[in-house]
Amino acid sequence: MADNKAPPKDVIRILVSTDNHLGYLEKDPIRGEDSFRTFEEIFRIAKAAKVDLVLLGGDLFHENKPSRSTFFKAGEILRKHCLGDDPVHFEIVSDQSINFPDTACVNYENPNYNISLPIFSIHGNHDDPMGMGSFSALDLLGQHNLVNYFGKAHNINDIKLFPILMHKGSTKLALYGLGSVREERLHRTFQSKKVQWVRPLEDKDSYFNLFVLHQNRLRRNAFYKNSISESMLPAFLDFVVWGHEHECLIDPVESVQKRYFVTQPGSSIATSLSQGETVPKHVGILEIKGDQYRMIKKKLQTVRPFKMQDVVLSELNLDEEDVEEASQSLPQEMLPLIRIRVDHNGYRKFSSARFGQKFVGKVANPEDILLFSKKQRAAPKKTA
Amino acid sequence: MADNKAPPKDVIRILVSTDNHLGYLEKDPIRGEDSFRTFEEIFRIAKAAKVDLVLLGGDLFHENKPSRSTFFKAGEILRKHCLGDDPVHFEIVSDQSINFPDTACVNYENPNYNISLPIFSIHGNHDDPMGMGSFSALDLLGQHNLVNYFGKAHNINDIKLFPILMHKGSTKLALYGLGSVREERLHRTFQSKKVQWVRPLEDKDSYFNLFVLHQNRLRRNAFYKNSISESMLPAFLDFVVWGHEHECLIDPVESVQKRYFVTQPGSSIATSLSQGETVPKHVGILEIKGDQYRMIKKKLQTVRPFKMQDVVLSELNLDEEDVEEASQSLPQEMLPLIRIRVDHNGYRKFSSARFGQKFVGKVANPEDILLFSKKQRAAPKKTA
Ligand SMILES: [Mn+2]
Ligand SMILES: [Mn+2]
Ligand SMILES: [Mn+2]
Ligand SMILES: [Mn+2]
Repeated sequence: MADNKAPPKDVIRILVSTDNHLGYLEKDPIRGEDSFRTFEEIFRIAKAAKVDLVLLGGDLFHENKPSRSTFFKAGEILRKHCLGDDPVHFEIVSDQSINFPDTACVNYENPNYNISLPIFSIHGNHDDPMGMGSFSALDLLGQHNLVNYFGKAHNINDIKLFPILMHKGSTKLALYGLGSVREERLHRTFQSKKVQWVRPLEDKDSYFNLFVLHQNRLRRNAFYKNSISESMLPAFLDFVVWGHEHECLIDPVESVQKRYFVTQPGSSIATSLSQGETVPKHVGILEIKGDQYRMIKKKLQTVRPFKMQDVVLSELNLDEEDVEEASQSLPQEMLPLIRIRVDHNGYRKFSSARFGQKFVGKVANPEDILLFSKKQRAAPKKTA
Repeated sequence: MADNKAPPKDVIRILVSTDNHLGYLEKDPIRGEDSFRTFEEIFRIAKAAKVDLVLLGGDLFHENKPSRSTFFKAGEILRKHCLGDDPVHFEIVSDQSINFPDTACVNYENPNYNISLPIFSIHGNHDDPMGMGSFSALDLLGQHNLVNYFGKAHNINDIKLFPILMHKGSTKLALYGLGSVREERLHRTFQSKKVQWVRPLEDKDSYFNLFVLHQNRLRRNAFYKNSISESMLPAFLDFVVWGHEHECLIDPVESVQKRYFVTQPGSSIATSLSQGETVPKHVGILEIKGDQYRMIKKKLQTVRPFKMQDVVLSELNLDEEDVEEASQSLPQEMLPLIRIRVDHNGYRKFSSARFGQKFVGKVANPEDILLFSKKQRAAPKKTA
């Protein structure tokens, strides 16, 4: 795929991204704009790549009820990139009143709006439907025609997944989506065979079947109540975009039972200072032609540098040079995030905040550079 | 003015309404839809009257941060009535980047949206700008192009009022607006002559000058710190739409110093069970032609009936028949609001809640039918 060249008439080109967490630390004077800056970059990439659509995997917003400021900034970016006269080159042949219950219409077909770049999104656990009427923040963006929000399960005990059927030239795409559901409940629904995958009535074998979900991912042929295992997903799927997991594993890998391929784009901003978030952040440009796909990854350039290092006090004396060293190996345009996990076994803890004061102006997170533990252990449980 | 006939080419026809308090008691199983039902009626009236625009006087939302449900329902009504192909017949000649700082463009001129009925609104004290970035819920509706939000003062100590200049045929309208400001502070700004009224550079005397505000109204030639007195407003004004006061005094009256006329549309829903809210609710259809205006009032048909009565226990024995009687004199399609102010001087209070249980299913507010006082007094202070 060459940038700056529209996809051929039989190719559906999709930018995939997830966990943008808009509004994360919005009040932080250093990091407050990070989520928005990268979200903006993602749309610059989408436009440069002339994609047909953008597919988001949930956690668009960090807060379930985003502040007015965050909601406004999100709207600014979406308005800037999604409105316009450029034509959309695919058509939807499924029942839109089932796909998009709020609006009953994909945004670019609404005659009162000019949409040039359609976005399709499920919700994550951060922006899931809640409260009176069970609305998500995505319902609001959907109502104002900036996002096509889909995959909201109305009965968690009995889930029917209706695909959005997209045609472009001879390529046919069935896009399935399921917004975040509490892991244990979804697990149970899968186990009791109450997840129905509705297939196209006509020519179902001619469709490329793409699924986007937002759950804990289990990369083994096993069942754990708090995860969705790859082996629970049906064999007719061709490709899965896995949201919620913040580690960027963008290169598609075959599922454990060799049924389909999976990409895990990871978050576009680090919301926990854990190992998984240190992996360079990417988005994917997925191209589908007939039953074939290919994916090109694009490294995000605006993500704040983040470096993590382990130190064992009994083996080494921690001093400020470790921080200096860690931060100097990173590009310096933006203050980096630095985390040093300190195994202080046999030593007393000292004040992380006081330690950090020396790095104000040099590190973006002076208050929590140090993470103390009594012995080496896995990364702390993250909320993704 | 005959309904169903578009205004002549030199007439600007405006529906004026205020204090719609969308979302008021949204969780009340009986009254939860009241604010939306009447807001919808207002737009039916606007369309039947073929108005050029709708002018709202603040407190569109009851809560500063409306629930997603309320924001969604508001959006539904606005989308239903404001989008479409019908042309807009007036033009704006003032600097729109000053009038509408968020969007720099009146909504019907944005090429990416089809707007058939433009709304212009200031904010009230219920939906005033707050928090990070100082956004109002109206900023969000404005960003999504459903409302033209104006009159946000950025420095309360030094207020510059730039009018929106509208031309239609030979009629020229200068629309000034000032969103709600804390009374004492605004009073001080007026007193220190720091409220500047910017006049049109050209032909200023050919403009009809309309002002909309949202403050306590003082109908005397006097100064009280917690009100804006009619005499504080400049003599060049022709007409004022006064928001915030919930009592409907829709018929224009001359200001105390005979400078201009004032309409006080009142709220479109009773948010306090006080005397002022018992007055039948109206909206106005204001027509402006050259330097002349006329106004036709339209009674709102969907407002929940509300009757208030005083009872002095020492003069009368209160029994249930008073409530029955009060409620029977009202149309019965909708459960009425009933308030009985009980002067219980010389008697012990009894449980208003227990008393109300007998009227469940007959009265919309069984829990607070009775208001006890020790002696006859003025209506309680309201929050409008
Ligand atoms: Mn998540
Ligand atoms: Mn996440
Ligand atoms: Mn008010
Ligand atoms: Mn009010």
